[in-house]
This record gives sequence, C-alpha cells and structure tokens, in this order.
Amino acid sequence: MTRRRIRGSTQDDVRRHNLGTILTEVHRHGYRSRALLTAEMGLNRSTIGDLVAELTEAGLVLQRSASAQGRAGRPSLEVVPSPEGVYVLAVDLGVRHLAVARVGLGGDVLDRVDVDSERDWSDLDITVDAIAEACRGLRRGAPARARCVGVGLSVPGVVRQEDGLLRFAPNLGWTDLPLGARLGERLDLPAVIANDADLGALAEHWRGVAVGYEHVVVVSGEIGIGGGILVGGRPLRGRGGYAGEIGHLRVNPDGRPCRCGSSGCLETEIGADALLREAGRRPGSGMDAYRAVLAEAAAGDEEAKNAAARVARWLGVGVGILVNTFNPDIVILGGPLGELYKATADIVEEATARSSLVAPREQVRLAASALGPDAQIVGAAELAFEPLLEDPIGTLTHRAA
Amino acid sequence: MTRRRIRGSTQDDVRRHNLGTILTEVHRHGYRSRALLTAEMGLNRSTIGDLVAELTEAGLVLQRSASAQGRAGRPSLEVVPSPEGVYVLAVDLGVRHLAVARVGLGGDVLDRVDVDSERDWSDLDITVDAIAEACRGLRRGAPARARCVGVGLSVPGVVRQEDGLLRFAPNLGWTDLPLGARLGERLDLPAVIANDADLGALAEHWRGVAVGYEHVVVVSGEIGIGGGILVGGRPLRGRGGYAGEIGHLRVNPDGRPCRCGSSGCLETEIGADALLREAGRRPGSGMDAYRAVLAEAAAGDEEAKNAAARVARWLGVGVGILVNTFNPDIVILGGPLGELYKATADIVEEATARSSLVAPREQVRLAASALGPDAQIVGAAELAFEPLLEDPIGTLTHRAA
Repeated sequence: MTRRRIRGSTQDDVRRHNLGTILTEVHRHGYRSRALLTAEMGLNRSTIGDLVAELTEAGLVLQRSASAQGRAGRPSLEVVPSPEGVYVLAVDLGVRHLAVARVGLGGDVLDRVDVDSERDWSDLDITVDAIAEACRGLRRGAPARARCVGVGLSVPGVVRQEDGLLRFAPNLGWTDLPLGARLGERLDLPAVIANDADLGALAEHWRGVAVGYEHVVVVSGEIGIGGGILVGGRPLRGRGGYAGEIGHLRVNPDGRPCRCGSSGCLETEIGADALLREAGRRPGSGMDAYRAVLAEAAAGDEEAKNAAARVARWLGVGVGILVNTFNPDIVILGGPLGELYKATADIVEEATARSSLVAPREQVRLAASALGPDAQIVGAAELAFEPLLEDPIGTLTHRAA
Repeated sequence: MTRRRIRGSTQDDVRRHNLGTILTEVHRHGYRSRALLTAEMGLNRSTIGDLVAELTEAGLVLQRSASAQGRAGRPSLEVVPSPEGVYVLAVDLGVRHLAVARVGLGGDVLDRVDVDSERDWSDLDITVDAIAEACRGLRRGAPARARCVGVGLSVPGVVRQEDGLLRFAPNLGWTDLPLGARLGERLDLPAVIANDADLGALAEHWRGVAVGYEHVVVVSGEIGIGGGILVGGRPLRGRGGYAGEIGHLRVNPDGRPCRCGSSGCLETEIGADALLREAGRRPGSGMDAYRAVLAEAAAGDEEAKNAAARVARWLGVGVGILVNTFNPDIVILGGPLGELYKATADIVEEATARSSLVAPREQVRLAASALGPDAQIVGAAELAFEPLLEDPIGTLTHRAA
C-alpha cells in the first residue's frame, strides 16, 4: 500500500520499464542470454526480441551467439554491452585524493586518472578545474563513436537530494556549493553528486562483498566516519539526505570532545586518529602511521595491541547499535576500519555481541570492504548510469537533442 | 535502478495497479471525485469510469453526486467506500490489554471490544480463544452483506516477515509462535501479524500526526521500548523483521543492567519504570503512578521534577541518535513517552540538540502521538486491508472461492 504510485500506468511506461529492465540486467551481469531474459521477465520471446532490437539499434548493446557449451539445439543469442556504446565518468573526491575514471556499460573501469593529491581541494575553482581537466583527457581517449551519458561525483559531505547541492563538507571546509551543477555545466554533461558513504554501500551491493544482500551497513572513513546504509537495496537518505550520519552517534559519554560540538561520538572513538592517539602517536600522522600501529600489534607489541583493542571495542559498540537499529544482512567496515577489523575481529565481534540483541546479531555478517578504495568510483559510475538504466531510449534522445 | 522489478509488466498488471490505486485513494481519503482521480492518475475519463464501474460492481465502492458547492456545470461523481462492502478485523494485543475492532474501508472504526485485561495473555490458547471470541461477536454485528477480508494483529514482539511467525515477545514470554496462522485458521480469514511499533508508525503516517511525512520515527512503549520507523513511507524491517529495536541502543554505559544482557540501554533509562525509580516509587506500579509523578512535577515538586528531567535527558540522547541516523521528518513519542515529552519538551529538545548534528536537527519536528492508544488498531486495520488495496478484484475473487 505504501509503495503505490498515484499516477496510472500506460503502455509507454510498460515499454520503458521493460527496456530499462533488460539494459539493467545486461549492465549488472555483463551479459545476459535472450532465453534467460525471456524466462526472468515472463514476457514472450518475440517481445524480448523486439526490445533487444531497439536497444541494439540505439547502440547500447550487441547480440552475439552464446557458446553452445555442449547443449543440443540452437544456441541462445547473448546480449552484451556495446564496447563502443556508452560510458560515464566517475569522480571520487576525497579529503586527500582525487580520482577520475571512465566506466563502460557493464561496469568495467576502462581508463583512470589519479590527480596529484598534494593540491588543495579546499579551493573550489582549483578542484573543479582539476576534475574537468581529467575528464576531458579521458573523453579524448574514448572511441570516437562512444557516447558519454553523464558524470557521477562522490564527495565526503552531505548532499541535498532534490538538487544535488553539496550542503556541508566539513573536512573540505565547504558549505552550500552547487558542485555537481558547476561540473555539469563545465563538461556539458548531466552530473549527479552523492555522499561517498552512500555510494560505497551501493558499490558493495552491486559489485562487492554485499552482492545479493538488501540490508547493508557500511561504516567507513579515515578522518570523518560515515555510514552508507541500504534499506531494501536503496540508500537510506532521510528527509534531506543527511541520514546515516552515524559518525556522530554518541557512544562514550566519557569520550573526547568532537568537532560537532558533542563528545564521545563514534568518530572521536574509532577514527584513524583515535588509534594513533591511543598508541601514543601524533594524531593526523596519516595512514602509514596507522598501519604501523596495526603491524606492531600483530607483532605482539603490548602498547599497540592495547590501543587496537580499545578502539576495536568502541567499533563493536557502534556496530551493535547499527545491528539493533537496522537488522542488516551485513555490516561492512571500510578503509582504515576494515584494516582494524581484520587485525581485531574477535574483539570487535565480542563488543558487538555485548551491544546487540541475539536475534539480529545471529543474522548479521561482519566483513571488510571488498572494493576498498575503488568503492566510490564504482558507486559514482552506477549513479551516473541510473537515468540511462531507468529510461534507455529517452535518455539517449534527450542527450542527442 | 535499485527499485526495478526484474519481471516485465503486462496489461493485466496495469489494470490491477489502476484499480488498486483508485481503491487506495478512496480508502485513504474517505471519498474521491472522479474528476480528481482522472487528474491525479493522468488517465482519461472513460478509463476512470470503467475502473470505478468495476469496483462498484464488486461491491467495494459507491458513486454519488458530489455537492455542486455553487460551481457551474455538471457536478462530478464522487466515489466513496460502500458501507455494506468490506471490512477488516483489527486486533491490538498488548502486555496488559487486548482490543479488537471492526474497521471499514475508509478507515472508520465501526465497532470495538476491549477484553478484560486481567486475563493472563502469557497462555497462548487463552489468548487465541479470547481474540477469536471477540472477532466472532464483531462479525455477528456486521451488516449481512458486508464481507470481512482479513484480520490484522498487532503484537509487542518481533515478527518474521516471510511467514508472520512471532519470533520473540519477551514481555509475553513467547518464542516462535505461529500466532497469525493459528488465528487465521480459527477464523477462516487471511491473517497478518506485525510488530506494534511498526504499525504505530504506519498509523501515524496514514491517519495521525505524520500525515504527509515519509521519514518517520516513533519511539514508544511502556515496559519494552520499541521504535517504529518509516523510510520513504515504508516500515524499516531489515533482514528478519528485527530492525528498529532501538530499546536496546546503549545510551548510558553507567546505566542499569538491562534484561537483554547489556546495560544502560534506552529501555532501562527511559522506560516507565525508569521514571518511577528516579522518583523513588516502586517500579512496576503502573501508569497511574507514572502519571502521578508527572502531575507532581507539573505542580512543582522538586523530587518529581528532577526525576522527570533526568529521564527526559536520556530520552533526548536517544532522539538525537535517531535524528542523526534517520534524518526523519518527525520523531513521534508515543504512550508514556508522549506524556513525558509534553511535560518536559524543553529538556528533551535541548538534550536532542546536544546529541545531533545541526542539519538534520533543523529538519526534524518532535511530537507526541496523535492516535495514542488507538494507533495499533488503526495500523493493524491498514495492514489487513493491504492485499485488497494491492489487487481489489483478485483478492475478493480469491476470498469467494
């Protein structure tokens, strides 16, 4: 009842839906036989044939004979993304990095540029220039007939969903910036922007450790801690796109002051600096120092082991809260937290157990991220493909106009 | 992209969708003019006329002339639920109460029975007997031609969504009971069962203080504390239906031991007994004693005021966590918590502010429940109507067969 659209359905809607469904299946799986599409979608063979022909004519897919693999009878035709068809540009902007990639229909990263991370991303013009320059380079390298259908941008901040305004990116010092729109104008492409943690969760769902899971929580971040949460396969965004700000869940009333104005937030207790501080290192000394503490802990150094254990326990408390709240299939720990988890899995799991109810705890799996630092690129690409997958022909027509 | 069904759409799907949409609109609003349905659904007048005729013939709706209200021209026909059409039975089973109601299409409570609350609901057979007896009484009182299309059951426990098994109702002492199925067999009706907090949130969304809001959090409960959470208008259930167990969010590491095995859970810090304990009263002495403490606080009694303030602050910490996590439109406080909130709104809001980020906090409204103790009846009725609203003709045909 709650999921009903008020608008009525028409035959055009049906055709658009079916074209989108086929293209999504081909994109997600890399290839799909016509026989399987016919069976999955419950439509007849000639209808599937017509739909695939329309996608082929639009230059989105190709049909090829599937290898018969010893079976008798006519081999089914296989539908695959056209290699000279469409692609998107995916941008991962972080506090200390910028990566831009060209990603083809089907999800392959075809080309990639990592921009010098010593630049100052707090200056908006410098940042947009750098992204645009990298994008133009990648487009020049694309096949002549391939069409770019959009650019997806992952940012470490809060994005307002209605218009893609970057509301708040504290670690970049940005507030209320039309970053997506600015980049879209510069490149003359539809541009979409989203929170890095949301995209990380979508990426794990489609192509990472959470494939097949609908209820997914990713806890990640190096400096700021964010939550990427999927509910029924869709990002949890809330009213204004701020949902999942679990970095500021208050876990330790005796904890350190947080830059959000509270204290003892998950972010102050499990961020990269928390481990460095606990181990007597200088906060802000970076991932090499962080990894050094974990390596020393693994080698048996008591101070490093105790530091890792203390942070691991707060991580478990946070995971327990998320398990009770979301009853997820999987909680994925990304970035430094994934490395911490691999080094202290028993401690994290024990603390999770003490902070969660039996029933949801029995159903959850903990895991380190599968995609690692590529998750945002993968997610940004999926985001940029969304309009095409929703309405393949309409999107291409609109782009050509 | 994530919301796509793999199955293709057919003309039958379109008609079913459109019939369901009309019936849902009429049910939700109590009446709908054909002109408005035509405009909202974007279909032409004759199509709407055909669809409404089919619903009329099935005995679900009536058409009547809308009052012309001074406007020129032909008055539009208005579509209303048929008073002798269909109804559902709604059951609210609580730790200390049992209410059963007959609810008509359109949402009116037509008849209601409150069963003697001194009985022991920990005995399953006694409970099912009492519910079935009340249901039979209500059906005998219904118009001869009215058809009962199902029974909805609200329970204070965790329900497994796939099969409606009541997994865990600690305050009733029940584990793994096919309560919905048992009741359905006894009454020869489709029976659906759901968590009381989920139903409370749906009820506020459709007919209470959260009408028009898609992102809703209800915190309620007298003994156990539960969260009813709507994400995009739909209940957050998670993998196994356990999501929203926010009663066991750990807010106070120095807090009291909780029966879940942890300590300092929201439930131990804000449940009805927490206020009684803080005010020096005997825990378990009930809602009259609870209200007496709030009345004394309102009258200026220092001990009662301090007790209410302490509990209000933990409530605010919990609300802050929920604001950061869900970025909801509204957080609704139900039952005793609603009464506490009315008495201590400033303190709750200040504590919420200290535990949440500015952006989502600016977007949230706090409110006491509008439906109060009727929320579960309203929600259970909506649940029981769902199959009919999804597929009106198919559901009736199936019931007649």
